[in-house]
Amino acid sequence: MAGTPGTVRPGGRTARVRTAVLEAAGDALVEHGFHGLDLADVARRANVGKTTVYRRWSTVTGLVADLLEDMAEQSVARTDTGNLSGDLRANARLVVETLTDPRQGALFKAVIAAATCDERTTRALNRFYATRIEEWAPCVDAAVTRGELQAGTDAREVIRAVSAPLYYRLLASGDPLDEATADRAAAAAEAAARAGAYVVDGPGAR
Amino acid sequence: MAGTPGTVRPGGRTARVRTAVLEAAGDALVEHGFHGLDLADVARRANVGKTTVYRRWSTVTGLVADLLEDMAEQSVARTDTGNLSGDLRANARLVVETLTDPRQGALFKAVIAAATCDERTTRALNRFYATRIEEWAPCVDAAVTRGELQAGTDAREVIRAVSAPLYYRLLASGDPLDEATADRAAAAAEAAARAGAYVVDGPGAR
Repeated sequence: MAGTPGTVRPGGRTARVRTAVLEAAGDALVEHGFHGLDLADVARRANVGKTTVYRRWSTVTGLVADLLEDMAEQSVARTDTGNLSGDLRANARLVVETLTDPRQGALFKAVIAAATCDERTTRALNRFYATRIEEWAPCVDAAVTRGELQAGTDAREVIRAVSAPLYYRLLASGDPLDEATADRAAAAAEAAARAGAYVVDGPGAR
Repeated sequence: MAGTPGTVRPGGRTARVRTAVLEAAGDALVEHGFHGLDLADVARRANVGKTTVYRRWSTVTGLVADLLEDMAEQSVARTDTGNLSGDLRANARLVVETLTDPRQGALFKAVIAAATCDERTTRALNRFYATRIEEWAPCVDAAVTRGELQAGTDAREVIRAVSAPLYYRLLASGDPLDEATADRAAAAAEAAARAGAYVVDGPGAR
């Protein structure tokens, strides 16, 4: 994920500046939220010239969009456990780990809140989730190939179904988010998938 | 729901003032979001004295908490169709109607965004969802009584599972929210419930 200390990235000065600025932007979002985000403050935190930050990112929304792009690029690869139960459980546990991590959880809340009131951030957030869903969808397609699920199962919808109850708890109901919640989200998505609830042209398909 | 034009409520002047102020607060949230909310502006919109608003609600977060309490009180009763499929579908369609309504959808986004950065609002939002989940849980208990679902099925978790994919689309992935999405969310929650995924002490329970 973006801003993880010790992350080694390729590239020269331009890449180093981007890394420093995006890490500072993440810190500022965690501390003050989207409405407290300020390019001059981010430049100071990153120890980068203000004009460099304004020239490259122009606006707060441009900076958040780039942060989300970086989060998508840096986010971890899917786990392949060899069976659908294990894969979905790994996915759900990763989501819970991320959302309950003090820094990452606060960062996700801040960008989701920002997206509710800014269209450019909405598009960047949607692209982030599209990237993550795309990363994990092959585990569902593999389950179809292995005969664990019916042909025509909408892989992306199964992956969305694993995350959905976890985000609902984080953002709406406030119910606990822990490993047991993760495992139940994975088990429920798997049970619905096995019952054919995500088969396109099947029951309830779109 | 709060602020629906034409809603007739019991009570005298105090109740009328509350209705006017909460409707104005909703309008202001829809237009400017939580960070643009201002008690003096709400008083002006409601045509109520500023001191009345300050005396009764004190702070913006106090006002939003009261708005959420009112939204819970005013929200519609559950539909009883006589079978689990019909009940869950009615629940999912109601959620989609609410979230895609221009005013209600913007209002929900605003209070969810506010809850990410304010604890009092978080608690009020969580109470709102607890009330709504409590309202709909009996349809799952009735399905258990009718023998449609196993004894021990966690009714609240089934109701959360219906809403979760809809909120995930609204707030995270940005995928479409329509009647087909609602029906699929209901069908998936039902399939998982029938498979025993929400049975306490069953697979993945907590």
